[in-house]
Amino acid sequence: MARTAASNVPETALTRVAIAGATGYTGQELLRILARHPAVAISSAMSSGASSGAARRLPALAHLWNGDIAPFSADTLAAEADVVFLALPDKAAAGVAPALVDAGVRVIDLSGAFRLRDAAGRAKWYPETHALPEGVAYGLTERERGAIVRARVVANPGCYPTATLLALAPLVEAGLLTAGTDVIVDAKSGVSGAGKTPSERTHFSECHGSLSAYGVFHHRHGAEIEQGAGRQVTFTPHLVPLDRGILSTIYVRVAPGTTEETIADVFARAYAGATFVRLVGAALPEIKHVAHTNFCDIGWRVEPDGRLILVSVIDNLLKGASGQAVQNMNVMLGIDERVGLL
Amino acid sequence: MARTAASNVPETALTRVAIAGATGYTGQELLRILARHPAVAISSAMSSGASSGAARRLPALAHLWNGDIAPFSADTLAAEADVVFLALPDKAAAGVAPALVDAGVRVIDLSGAFRLRDAAGRAKWYPETHALPEGVAYGLTERERGAIVRARVVANPGCYPTATLLALAPLVEAGLLTAGTDVIVDAKSGVSGAGKTPSERTHFSECHGSLSAYGVFHHRHGAEIEQGAGRQVTFTPHLVPLDRGILSTIYVRVAPGTTEETIADVFARAYAGATFVRLVGAALPEIKHVAHTNFCDIGWRVEPDGRLILVSVIDNLLKGASGQAVQNMNVMLGIDERVGLL
Amino acid sequence: MARTAASNVPETALTRVAIAGATGYTGQELLRILARHPAVAISSAMSSGASSGAARRLPALAHLWNGDIAPFSADTLAAEADVVFLALPDKAAAGVAPALVDAGVRVIDLSGAFRLRDAAGRAKWYPETHALPEGVAYGLTERERGAIVRARVVANPGCYPTATLLALAPLVEAGLLTAGTDVIVDAKSGVSGAGKTPSERTHFSECHGSLSAYGVFHHRHGAEIEQGAGRQVTFTPHLVPLDRGILSTIYVRVAPGTTEETIADVFARAYAGATFVRLVGAALPEIKHVAHTNFCDIGWRVEPDGRLILVSVIDNLLKGASGQAVQNMNVMLGIDERVGLL
Amino acid sequence: MARTAASNVPETALTRVAIAGATGYTGQELLRILARHPAVAISSAMSSGASSGAARRLPALAHLWNGDIAPFSADTLAAEADVVFLALPDKAAAGVAPALVDAGVRVIDLSGAFRLRDAAGRAKWYPETHALPEGVAYGLTERERGAIVRARVVANPGCYPTATLLALAPLVEAGLLTAGTDVIVDAKSGVSGAGKTPSERTHFSECHGSLSAYGVFHHRHGAEIEQGAGRQVTFTPHLVPLDRGILSTIYVRVAPGTTEETIADVFARAYAGATFVRLVGAALPEIKHVAHTNFCDIGWRVEPDGRLILVSVIDNLLKGASGQAVQNMNVMLGIDERVGLL
Repeated sequence: MARTAASNVPETALTRVAIAGATGYTGQELLRILARHPAVAISSAMSSGASSGAARRLPALAHLWNGDIAPFSADTLAAEADVVFLALPDKAAAGVAPALVDAGVRVIDLSGAFRLRDAAGRAKWYPETHALPEGVAYGLTERERGAIVRARVVANPGCYPTATLLALAPLVEAGLLTAGTDVIVDAKSGVSGAGKTPSERTHFSECHGSLSAYGVFHHRHGAEIEQGAGRQVTFTPHLVPLDRGILSTIYVRVAPGTTEETIADVFARAYAGATFVRLVGAALPEIKHVAHTNFCDIGWRVEPDGRLILVSVIDNLLKGASGQAVQNMNVMLGIDERVGLL
Repeated sequence: MARTAASNVPETALTRVAIAGATGYTGQELLRILARHPAVAISSAMSSGASSGAARRLPALAHLWNGDIAPFSADTLAAEADVVFLALPDKAAAGVAPALVDAGVRVIDLSGAFRLRDAAGRAKWYPETHALPEGVAYGLTERERGAIVRARVVANPGCYPTATLLALAPLVEAGLLTAGTDVIVDAKSGVSGAGKTPSERTHFSECHGSLSAYGVFHHRHGAEIEQGAGRQVTFTPHLVPLDRGILSTIYVRVAPGTTEETIADVFARAYAGATFVRLVGAALPEIKHVAHTNFCDIGWRVEPDGRLILVSVIDNLLKGASGQAVQNMNVMLGIDERVGLL
Repeated sequence: MARTAASNVPETALTRVAIAGATGYTGQELLRILARHPAVAISSAMSSGASSGAARRLPALAHLWNGDIAPFSADTLAAEADVVFLALPDKAAAGVAPALVDAGVRVIDLSGAFRLRDAAGRAKWYPETHALPEGVAYGLTERERGAIVRARVVANPGCYPTATLLALAPLVEAGLLTAGTDVIVDAKSGVSGAGKTPSERTHFSECHGSLSAYGVFHHRHGAEIEQGAGRQVTFTPHLVPLDRGILSTIYVRVAPGTTEETIADVFARAYAGATFVRLVGAALPEIKHVAHTNFCDIGWRVEPDGRLILVSVIDNLLKGASGQAVQNMNVMLGIDERVGLL
Repeated sequence: MARTAASNVPETALTRVAIAGATGYTGQELLRILARHPAVAISSAMSSGASSGAARRLPALAHLWNGDIAPFSADTLAAEADVVFLALPDKAAAGVAPALVDAGVRVIDLSGAFRLRDAAGRAKWYPETHALPEGVAYGLTERERGAIVRARVVANPGCYPTATLLALAPLVEAGLLTAGTDVIVDAKSGVSGAGKTPSERTHFSECHGSLSAYGVFHHRHGAEIEQGAGRQVTFTPHLVPLDRGILSTIYVRVAPGTTEETIADVFARAYAGATFVRLVGAALPEIKHVAHTNFCDIGWRVEPDGRLILVSVIDNLLKGASGQAVQNMNVMLGIDERVGLL
């Protein structure tokens, strides 16, 4: 078992963690965080690409982790890890997770396979997911800690839902949104959100100097946002020529006369003690302030007639994926959720 | 009078045009277009910066135009030009335009000084504009040709209003928008829209890899869009790390059951014969397709419940500024509006 | 035969041109230029991808050219075109060019297949090129006009060699370079130079915010530069996070005491009347000034001890590929070489 | 004294550090690193801009450090800090450092004021520096540890010299470079190297999509590189459209027949135990692999005729400035030089 660089805890006390899908962008971020995490030891890092014999080196991580990327093996995962991170395509995650749960391993799944509780939604967006394993929690950490601490499987949220729901859900819960009005989520994402597989859409010369909307009225993260918001949401993602980061601009209606202070109070209560949600109010957040961090910064402005605009930013690979996954692991292990993430 | 490169019309038949503010981004684009325009001769190009004696060279344009950038002089503009393009700050444009009109020069003003017809709106957003000169037309070419052809002053539209109103106005006019529902305009602009004066906000290292909303509920282009749409609009601009281009995502409500074909028909009628508006429907447009052109590409998607999303893209320096200004000049001169712009 | 937009010459007088490989970046640029070119008509635009039935649309060019992208057919090229532009992979170009020449068609080949005169060099870098057709000219326009006007095949130069040789060759020819000293070419290219096929190396998230050298001591453009310079050259290309443009920094030794004026004189003689080479001397050129143009800007600085640095910039898709190809066509047709390119 | 977030050492045992110039890019990086450093407490962070009363907030760092940016005060620095980091303009650093040294404070100066040992060189490039204080060490950590541990002032190297000399100096020292041949350093830097003050040259729309050489034959970092290399060096910096990172391509001559293994051996001896220099050999390094880290990656290729190319990459704000400054502080304090930097 490869020892992490930063650890100064007796090795026997360390939680054994494994990463399936270690060479993608989220997998690499997991390695980067976990290799420095003082409470864990990386038992294995796997990639289906490694099975071809052409083991993938990760030169930028060599100083942090000295192990090899191994071919994917569900048996090894079950035998040698206490917690497994699945940074796999939806179908692969849907296939391997149940056996891991049966073997007593706790699973943090970064795919979408187990995010939707509703069977009809899963049938539409994640048809390879035949059933939810028992003990699935939705891993929007700040809002689901109780479920996560007991979970056998954490369905780590999508990047767009994370940015959006952290801003939207407390207002829904507080009953502030006017019934029957539209909820518009106009979201903008850096290109790393599309993953590491080259495609025409993510070719440098196609993205650089351009900007486009996609998945209009038809994006699986829309269903996930609606699940979290408990109402219809119009969700439009856009691809922006930057590498890391999501900015979600959210348009809702509240009662006329609702003040920015009222909004601030709702958020302050919802996120008391939540280090990774920073409330910036009328200052409005920028991607630059959260890139390469696990923070979600949320700002808002309201008009006297009740129009409310929320702006929420995250790093899509950290709070939107691997950072939140480790935050969830910390909650599952009962340790400070910030360990390894500041 | 410096002769343009491409001209093969007798010099005496050419319209004399001048540019005030020739060294900014829109001024340079005007020079680039007008220097190749077969129906005009550039009588002068001026810059207030040139009055310091440090005449600004424009090396990238040297092959097109061999004149010097002169110090600003309203008298010279009045004496030597038939048409003057004002690519100046609002205050400067508000100050100089009336005298030019009195001298019989036709003015195409790229500033915001004369865009708002409503005195209260002008008092709020353009306080230096004391009155509208007679004969002002709003220069959204495809929708105002009749007024432009007769105009003494063309108030060239803002970049955001151009992208937004070309998509929104035909639907308003056709009565398609559901009364009493919100109109949301979430717009994203490249940094050249902020002009050429360095600032912290437009410093490379602040923009690169970042993204932010600004002017929320408080941007003068919001007032201009509301004027054009004839109703309240929630307008949120965003600064995106690219140089040229605007993408405007517009959320409205139409009657349930309205089809994409119905929308297509409205646009087809509105833009019959309008070369510079391209209707791409469900294909959705991208900034890449309009950068360095005078086109506005418009796409749309509608849901059975009446939610309609429009996406409109332009090059902010061309259709959003200098290209449309020349298009307006062509209309004023009674020549094919495409001359110099294809 | 699809008629071009800008043409006002009788159709029968137009030269019929065809493009093989019309959907790549250089092919699209060819279409964009040729569609506006007053002396030609596009007889066909072909793509091997089109043979699958999924005809590729080029929405950004729709206003310029209303034809369809047809499947590749050498017979059609031979039958229906006077001049054929090959924007194909080396191997495909090597295969099709001889038959076209035999059929009496003039060929402008943008691949590398016929650039190297030396058989050993071709065997190493372009093994699919079995022999040079008769009548091949190297298409560095400003230096080879005499050969180009008579050529049956123009081997259009590589992008790096164009930027480098336009700066280097006149000094070699004038005998200014000190014998036996190193010639170092450190070149930087935008990503469009790598073509349109997605790959890990040209994936947005791999290029954005990064920079790397490649092909060190082993790049076929090095052989082409050495052919043009007539001596050993150390050539190192770098991939830079921008879309279009090459900047080549060239380090040579001249006799101590050689002045910048002496260099200027050599260039002035070499490029007298050459519109597309702009000599900026100590001002040093920038990619921004040549992007989207057919210009090559060349600057230089010299030290009293004879160290000379040349900086040369081009748009890799225009002067480095399609622009120069059309410039060569103009020379072949005996018309002003600038037509369609200003 | 504001306590750092990560510290779990008794406060009395912590070294008190202060930052003068905390709001620039290097100052912010210093704050980010020092706030998490377990062996120090930040006694103050100052900015001359703060003296205007408009105290500068650093929202992105709020979670790490809860202090205020104070107006600049040399007296406070002398009284309340054990180690002072000067992230100031050259002139300001030259002025304040001597008094701090006299007061017994150890100084790490990120400006260029004290980098050149030669008085003539200082007179040319840093005329405000009247004399070197006693006890100045040049802070290229891996090569100067002995001097740094005893130093009263560390002149932290420039970003270009760091990237270049870490690759070049071991070969010079080993006597591998052929006498009398040129040493060419072609360096490329991200825009953050130009600092945080807006200017036309660093305006987003001027840099994006562009590339240029600057300071040809005349850049103070050239003198610093020559000092470190002990011979003439031709140094050409270029400005590249990315935020963070430098890539330095170095062209030298070694004896014909020298192998890549010989080079590897020299580097391996020079950097035995040096965590922050990674030797990648023929693999060649990329900026992406070192951005946001304190690493310097060095690669090389050699030809049989003795031409050797070295490629060296760093993050200009970390190994090229603030990271190396903290590394130097660690050396001065006698603790593991990696603390706070992995």
